[in-house]
Amino acid sequence: MTPGVGAKADLSASAERTSALAELLRWLDAGALVLLSATGDDPDRALFTGRANLGTALVVAKPGATPRLGYFTPMERDEAAATGLDLLTPDDLDLARWHRDSPQAGAFHANAVGQALLRCGVGPGRIALAGRLPFGLAQEIVERLGGEGWTFVSATEPLLTLRRRKSAAELAEVRRVSAAVVAAFRHVAGRLAATEVRAGELWLMGERLRVARLKSEIAELFARSGLDQPRANIVAPAEEGGVPHSAGTLDRVLRAAESLVVDLFPRAVLFSDCTRTFCVGDPPPALTAAHAATLAALELAHAGARPGARGWDLQQRICAHFSELGYATPISAPGTLNGYVHGLGHGVGYELHEYPTFKHAAGAEGILAVGDLVTLEPGLYDPDPEGGFGVRLEDLVALHSDGNENLTAMPYSLDPRAWH
Amino acid sequence: MTPGVGAKADLSASAERTSALAELLRWLDAGALVLLSATGDDPDRALFTGRANLGTALVVAKPGATPRLGYFTPMERDEAAATGLDLLTPDDLDLARWHRDSPQAGAFHANAVGQALLRCGVGPGRIALAGRLPFGLAQEIVERLGGEGWTFVSATEPLLTLRRRKSAAELAEVRRVSAAVVAAFRHVAGRLAATEVRAGELWLMGERLRVARLKSEIAELFARSGLDQPRANIVAPAEEGGVPHSAGTLDRVLRAAESLVVDLFPRAVLFSDCTRTFCVGDPPPALTAAHAATLAALELAHAGARPGARGWDLQQRICAHFSELGYATPISAPGTLNGYVHGLGHGVGYELHEYPTFKHAAGAEGILAVGDLVTLEPGLYDPDPEGGFGVRLEDLVALHSDGNENLTAMPYSLDPRAWH
Repeated sequence: MTPGVGAKADLSASAERTSALAELLRWLDAGALVLLSATGDDPDRALFTGRANLGTALVVAKPGATPRLGYFTPMERDEAAATGLDLLTPDDLDLARWHRDSPQAGAFHANAVGQALLRCGVGPGRIALAGRLPFGLAQEIVERLGGEGWTFVSATEPLLTLRRRKSAAELAEVRRVSAAVVAAFRHVAGRLAATEVRAGELWLMGERLRVARLKSEIAELFARSGLDQPRANIVAPAEEGGVPHSAGTLDRVLRAAESLVVDLFPRAVLFSDCTRTFCVGDPPPALTAAHAATLAALELAHAGARPGARGWDLQQRICAHFSELGYATPISAPGTLNGYVHGLGHGVGYELHEYPTFKHAAGAEGILAVGDLVTLEPGLYDPDPEGGFGVRLEDLVALHSDGNENLTAMPYSLDPRAWH
Repeated sequence: MTPGVGAKADLSASAERTSALAELLRWLDAGALVLLSATGDDPDRALFTGRANLGTALVVAKPGATPRLGYFTPMERDEAAATGLDLLTPDDLDLARWHRDSPQAGAFHANAVGQALLRCGVGPGRIALAGRLPFGLAQEIVERLGGEGWTFVSATEPLLTLRRRKSAAELAEVRRVSAAVVAAFRHVAGRLAATEVRAGELWLMGERLRVARLKSEIAELFARSGLDQPRANIVAPAEEGGVPHSAGTLDRVLRAAESLVVDLFPRAVLFSDCTRTFCVGDPPPALTAAHAATLAALELAHAGARPGARGWDLQQRICAHFSELGYATPISAPGTLNGYVHGLGHGVGYELHEYPTFKHAAGAEGILAVGDLVTLEPGLYDPDPEGGFGVRLEDLVALHSDGNENLTAMPYSLDPRAWH
């Protein structure tokens, strides 16, 4: 069994969202949106059903009508009802018939979707499609329904755009998750501040402090707040933090005078995302300099992240800043693994990475707008196995018409003892 | 940033697996398998790359050649290399050119895939497709490549079949995860055994014992072992456990003489999955009877789960057993939410739910085979808000040619004090 965690459809419900969806369908010249996916992890489905734990399910949305949720097993009746959506039951979808007459996966799902459309009064015509399914299965459904007169247009990009502008309830939810993230960082800082150094290693309460202890205490805190870590977290010392994707090795003992990158991205229904970098004891000069340069970059990013700003322009500005200080960047040295090696940030929501983007090639999705929730995360890296380090400072910021809101406001100091 | 956790391509590598893949391609009459997905969570990609944390990436597999992994950003070079696969770098894929000339998502990915096929010497022809992508994006890629002479066939179902027969390394990994699951259950039993009852509520170390405490201690244990809980877990008392999907409410205080369903399903690279049901103090007669009936059902399931057995036949046998005892089942009362309300089990692997199945309509995927890893999880439920309860007992079993291996062998007793 996998758990349901309570439906939160109201997170997404707003008059503005409803009219945006109607506009999206007009723009796509589609009579309805149909979303089909196999799990509640689907971010487009979450837009309608929160994190209601349903297996395979579909949503049919028409302009001006409450979206309808089709669920596939009677056991999920209460979970489905709690979303507040109008329901299509397994009987409404005629599932017993398709199980019997067309059990093959493509035919079964195509028949279920076709039945849902009929039930919703959506005749053959142009339909906007969304949802995550295996490559081949999606293909097969589209072909089969195509034979019955349906034509399809992808709603993936438009929904990513629609999801950018957070509702008040969505933002409140991310504030709640972010408060738990801030509490976890303060806990980590407290643990690090309480260590003593013996022969260069950090000791806490009579034992060596290892990555595993911090990770497990963070997991404990998040679970207590009802937050999941679907993609775990990063607690990466020194050379491990010198590679941005390294999660940190569990049995690694933390040492004085080395960097420790802590990057946490738990989820309730939506994600939060935040990074700080610590150093217990006297940091080597290269680390001090990198931290100061990264903090200055983050301040530039905060100042520049305004509705109307182009993400790539901000990335260029940050690269120029780092270049002036002598660090390599993706612009000065494409593909570099030393220096500033990644983009400035990304949108956050039902997915950890969504629109807007800070990429060069981006169109409208690369221009910041009111309602966006974005990370700003400059960093500097040296992956040298001997003496390497990582520094990354990341805030989560909501863009409002009257200014930015930093959802992860807390100290940036390397020194955990300076956090109090 | 999201973390990499070390590549584990070797989990899947075996001569048997390689020849199974070649056979799959012959059977599909396809020159190569192409897998494209946006995250490392993709279970088909995990088959090739373990849990290597790559963003968008592709795999091209041809009969008789080491599969090639195409990664999309230089930052992921080491993570990609650690899989042991032959690599296609962003330069090999000509990504800078597509970023510049065809930045729109469908065109960009289609061009990247086309370039990968060329680099691998796979000319236009029939290709097997796999990977999870948004509905619309997958569709667009297929259409664009179709215009260049490629035809496609879905590899989703064949790969689910290929994934059934676990390699020795995969099985060793699930044994490791399962050992941590067993340790977590023993911890929970120990906590419950140490409680005292005051006015019907369970107290532990001077405070009321709530769902949140057990959930957070479980999270801490799993994190310490490097396990994720991408889909959290279930700690569901009484009427909450009476609904199989209910995860349990964090602030719910546990009580004496009520059921507590604990269902844990963490993941390293592959999942484990196990359930026990507890009761502190004297269980009411209905709970005692339901537990005994469920345990007898589990014993029947263990005895019947043999290579060659049909999953649906086992489900029928369990339903007959419960019916004889007076409980409703999905066969005697389709759609019932009281009694035995779900299927007997499911395959487990890179996904929590995969082949084989115990469903009525299943073909070959419904017949148990050597190499399968399956849950057996009968249960009885009464969702009544007053006096309701849940009982589920679930083991994870590997089917070998010389008998079954129970990976979650430990007590089944309701009474946590009987666990020592």
